[in-house]
Amino acid sequence: MPDINRAVVLAARPQGAPVESDFRIEQRPIAKIAQGQILCRNLFVSLDAGFRNWMDEDSGDNVLPAMPLGEPVMGLTLSQVLDSRHPEYREGEYLMARFAWEEYTLTDAGDFISRLPAEPRAPLSHYLGVLGDTGLSAYFGLTDHGRVQPGETVLVSAAAGAVGSIAGQIARIYGARAVGIASGADKCAQLIDVLGYDAAVDRTAADIDAALQRACPDGVDVYFDNVGGPLLEHVLDQINEDARILLCGAVASYSATEPLPGPRNLFQLTTKHASMHGFMTHLQLARYDEARAVLGGWIDEGRINVPEHRLDGIDNVGRAFCDLFRGANFGKSVVAL
Amino acid sequence: MPDINRAVVLAARPQGAPVESDFRIEQRPIAKIAQGQILCRNLFVSLDAGFRNWMDEDSGDNVLPAMPLGEPVMGLTLSQVLDSRHPEYREGEYLMARFAWEEYTLTDAGDFISRLPAEPRAPLSHYLGVLGDTGLSAYFGLTDHGRVQPGETVLVSAAAGAVGSIAGQIARIYGARAVGIASGADKCAQLIDVLGYDAAVDRTAADIDAALQRACPDGVDVYFDNVGGPLLEHVLDQINEDARILLCGAVASYSATEPLPGPRNLFQLTTKHASMHGFMTHLQLARYDEARAVLGGWIDEGRINVPEHRLDGIDNVGRAFCDLFRGANFGKSVVAL
Repeated sequence: MPDINRAVVLAARPQGAPVESDFRIEQRPIAKIAQGQILCRNLFVSLDAGFRNWMDEDSGDNVLPAMPLGEPVMGLTLSQVLDSRHPEYREGEYLMARFAWEEYTLTDAGDFISRLPAEPRAPLSHYLGVLGDTGLSAYFGLTDHGRVQPGETVLVSAAAGAVGSIAGQIARIYGARAVGIASGADKCAQLIDVLGYDAAVDRTAADIDAALQRACPDGVDVYFDNVGGPLLEHVLDQINEDARILLCGAVASYSATEPLPGPRNLFQLTTKHASMHGFMTHLQLARYDEARAVLGGWIDEGRINVPEHRLDGIDNVGRAFCDLFRGANFGKSVVAL
Repeated sequence: MPDINRAVVLAARPQGAPVESDFRIEQRPIAKIAQGQILCRNLFVSLDAGFRNWMDEDSGDNVLPAMPLGEPVMGLTLSQVLDSRHPEYREGEYLMARFAWEEYTLTDAGDFISRLPAEPRAPLSHYLGVLGDTGLSAYFGLTDHGRVQPGETVLVSAAAGAVGSIAGQIARIYGARAVGIASGADKCAQLIDVLGYDAAVDRTAADIDAALQRACPDGVDVYFDNVGGPLLEHVLDQINEDARILLCGAVASYSATEPLPGPRNLFQLTTKHASMHGFMTHLQLARYDEARAVLGGWIDEGRINVPEHRLDGIDNVGRAFCDLFRGANFGKSVVAL
């Protein structure tokens, strides 16, 4: 059994977007396992921009507590049980867990943990992406709240991100026209070539309203928002009657030092009798197996392409997290340990 | 048959809140009725702040066209058919119609018109208020989108207004705790004494957050918003999980010369997995009879008190409209002609 752990600790609270020096590697001894505990090897770390919130001293929400300075950064991992003294876990099992950015985790299993199926699909890292919280966010959002109908226009922000890269493809499976928003011509081209989006909008366009209008000539029926912030005001001007707006993520806000201005045209929701839905995917844990079966089927049929932004080694976890805020990733970001 | 009409015409486009001099009375001859037309006597004019939008040259929405300068102001009336050359209407019938602010309306009945029941309830003006678009907005909003459950807290803005005065009472009938927001201590006292609200929040309080917290110690489950604007940001900070926000009106915005700032904390909808619903009551026309039966039953049982802010005569219509923006009304504003 290993007795030395390497962990990424929060060296400084990020000011705005995180930088590599906000994190540092520390070696720590691994205590002897006690009754009721499990020792896990963390195979993959998932990088999720939302965790930036809890790096602040006051995150402004109560979803998770603020991360302590000098302690391993809380995150989401794909882990395997190495040793178990806990009645509910056995050696060899694969878990998706809210563990820290570290090579091994010794825990009383009181954290947020879900099991992978007994015979997991390959590659395992998909359980952090398309078959994990991000892919399931795309699925639950579009299915439960989006109620996407054939022929509708579904607009997705951060369309190349972990959630957006799956959302656009699900929208097309549901028969909709999928339009993605990303920054820069290269990423926009990839949206169409790699992810099958019908059209792309460059977030850096000089006239974003005109760009949205060109890409969505029939208006927007469903907006799957992963970025929050000022973009929403532009999109609200383009919504159709009975539009559904899905508030999934707000990457534009997580690292903002001041609250970003809100949309001044929310009354569009009234005149268009439209709705806006916030949702937290991890509350749907009981439906994960069902949703994974559907998504897994689509992957097998070649209807979903799963791009991954993958780095290796614990030393690269901090950098991979910072990459999210530079938009350096295409698809789900993971680090293989 | 009358041959002289008196009408309130739009003398000037209001700058900000409307003032009396934006309107003037004109006498106009009434043309001879032609085949396919009806001539109506307008018994009551309904005053609805939302119509302020279409007094601008560009309302920013497409719900109704901008009102032409120098022409009778478009509004909502309770009218009786005096003479009919139209196969679908007969003399004596009562209508709720999108007619102008004038004593008589000669029309080919192509406008938005709904019929009162063959045996209307008394008083007739209720069909512009509690049994009209405003009361039905309260009913449909809380029933369809609010899905109010016993024990929940329902917060209502512009709580003494035409919609709010009914919404609070319906919330209580549904078993909720009703909290109203209005401006000034007098109005707040009336919310409790006349409308049966459980608690009131003074919009002019120095610390609105603390005032909301005091009035809603268990948080807000449903927010019925009739004012829009900056108040929403304060309320979003107090919402519970699975909260529903109903965007009915935006009286704070109708007369704003610049768009008001939007809420900077919309991400609360995500972390609280809450939703926001815009709705337009007149689209539910097919359900008006059903809803009127329910509301009428509650009035008969003494469970709904129906305050009315009533003025008399066409000369007072402009003033009654301006009163809405001064918050001078308590309950539904109508002018009896």
